[in-house]
Amino acid sequence: MTDHLLNYNNKIIGIDDLSTGEKFFLQNSFKNKNFKFIKSDLTNLKTAKKIVKNADIVMHFAANADVRYGHKDTYRDIKQNTLVTYSVLESMRVNNIKNIAFCSTGSVYGEAKNFPTPENDTFPIQTSFYGASKLAGESLIQAYCEAFNFKSWIFRFVSILGNRYTHGHVYDFLKQLDQNPKKLNVLGDGNQRKSYLHVDDCISAILTAVNKSKNKVNIFNLGTNEYITVKDSIKEICKTNNLKPKLNFLGGKRGWIGDSPFIYLDCKKIRSLGWKPKFSIKKSLILTTKYINDNKWIFKIRK
Amino acid sequence: MTDHLLNYNNKIIGIDDLSTGEKFFLQNSFKNKNFKFIKSDLTNLKTAKKIVKNADIVMHFAANADVRYGHKDTYRDIKQNTLVTYSVLESMRVNNIKNIAFCSTGSVYGEAKNFPTPENDTFPIQTSFYGASKLAGESLIQAYCEAFNFKSWIFRFVSILGNRYTHGHVYDFLKQLDQNPKKLNVLGDGNQRKSYLHVDDCISAILTAVNKSKNKVNIFNLGTNEYITVKDSIKEICKTNNLKPKLNFLGGKRGWIGDSPFIYLDCKKIRSLGWKPKFSIKKSLILTTKYINDNKWIFKIRK
Repeated sequence: MTDHLLNYNNKIIGIDDLSTGEKFFLQNSFKNKNFKFIKSDLTNLKTAKKIVKNADIVMHFAANADVRYGHKDTYRDIKQNTLVTYSVLESMRVNNIKNIAFCSTGSVYGEAKNFPTPENDTFPIQTSFYGASKLAGESLIQAYCEAFNFKSWIFRFVSILGNRYTHGHVYDFLKQLDQNPKKLNVLGDGNQRKSYLHVDDCISAILTAVNKSKNKVNIFNLGTNEYITVKDSIKEICKTNNLKPKLNFLGGKRGWIGDSPFIYLDCKKIRSLGWKPKFSIKKSLILTTKYINDNKWIFKIRK
Repeated sequence: MTDHLLNYNNKIIGIDDLSTGEKFFLQNSFKNKNFKFIKSDLTNLKTAKKIVKNADIVMHFAANADVRYGHKDTYRDIKQNTLVTYSVLESMRVNNIKNIAFCSTGSVYGEAKNFPTPENDTFPIQTSFYGASKLAGESLIQAYCEAFNFKSWIFRFVSILGNRYTHGHVYDFLKQLDQNPKKLNVLGDGNQRKSYLHVDDCISAILTAVNKSKNKVNIFNLGTNEYITVKDSIKEICKTNNLKPKLNFLGGKRGWIGDSPFIYLDCKKIRSLGWKPKFSIKKSLILTTKYINDNKWIFKIRK
């Protein structure tokens, strides 16, 4: 997003605590005089108020983005997602910034019953700490919009693929295969149906929505009009790398506690603004696999 | 609730920081050997873990219950509603309590479009800090149910009337009239349509649901099959006290920021369990007015 916006002559202040982000990914941005970087986390409201300022819009992408381990550390999502969102909103309020774009997640639908799932689906029941913390963030944003005349763009993503990918199933699989190309452990029964979006398509969708949709609260699903089973994902990854590992399914419909076995979002709303994705899920899987092949150093950044 | 449960020989540990609760209301409970009281707030997790224990069920009613001033102190609802709910849940987890009943609110529907509003209404947009904080609480509870095998009963109330009433429109109106019986300031245009439930009916509904509904997550609207305008509320209150004040409407469709001009919940689900309210809204308004007439000391507990 930073590289893209800088290309169009925008001025950017990037704030990141680099706990899961990588400075290396900003190497092009750092060369640009319109880019300023602040290494800081936003959990402390006093600090946040000092640095979240002087902007037309805040793109609030800071989060724990890993849905899987919420129940292992029940406070992490509250702190990094809900409370950081509060810090950002409160800093915006005192510094008179009125526009916020927010990365939410398709996980807020819990285990949806309607597919593809539209933005105005029935009142959801949460199944993960991650989803709960993001819905709390969405709700806070909406309260700020009502009380303080903010405008918000809330994006409910499927999983994101593409360059600079550092977590998710392709990462996990390739990391395993890098150590042992003959065997692959797979969470669940492999029949989980999931939807993915390429990061370039994600960026263009966010900018389309922010430029064209001007309600008080603008909520958009972001995804492709497809889904793929975990088994078929593995096929694409292995075909790309010419591997034929033995698959060891760990069993169960769900890969982990709170894993939704079917994610498929209705993206008519964002498409009605003229956006459509350039990459199919298969193409995105292949590109992501190739990216990781060329950047094996990323295997070292996560336990 | 405490008096009621003690009458049926239950053992109760009451925890209250008495910031908005009144010790006086527990005078009967204190006489009962099955009642133990701990004066503490639950914002501190370490403290909470020491006292939220040894119970079959936690009835988590601790909250800031006033929807009106959220935007004046943006952290209050997060702290007293969302984070205290986290403290309670985490204390339950470490102390192996698996059942929780939770006071949520009809405010989580924001400004609903469907009336009466059912529990499975469309995905809501929050309009108040109070609603946002309670939805965050609901969501956390659901995540605990999924991850740790909790059972939950989540109640979305309309406003509660009856004995021990210490905040809300009847309180505000009678307090004004106590000082000047000839004039009454009314927030909004008086045409706001609201629904109310008598506290005795609320208690019986909660116990009906907890005893009869045994899903993982049990969500119930609680209200009457009626609504009343603020103007008609005023009529009942004034008739009961033989007053004819000049009404001064402060204007606007909403009484305050985030006020929902129409609240009317679909209560078919709780009624399907055999519960129905004993008191109409009018009867509840009259009883509440008489209760306040006999307990004018409550005017002193709030600014």
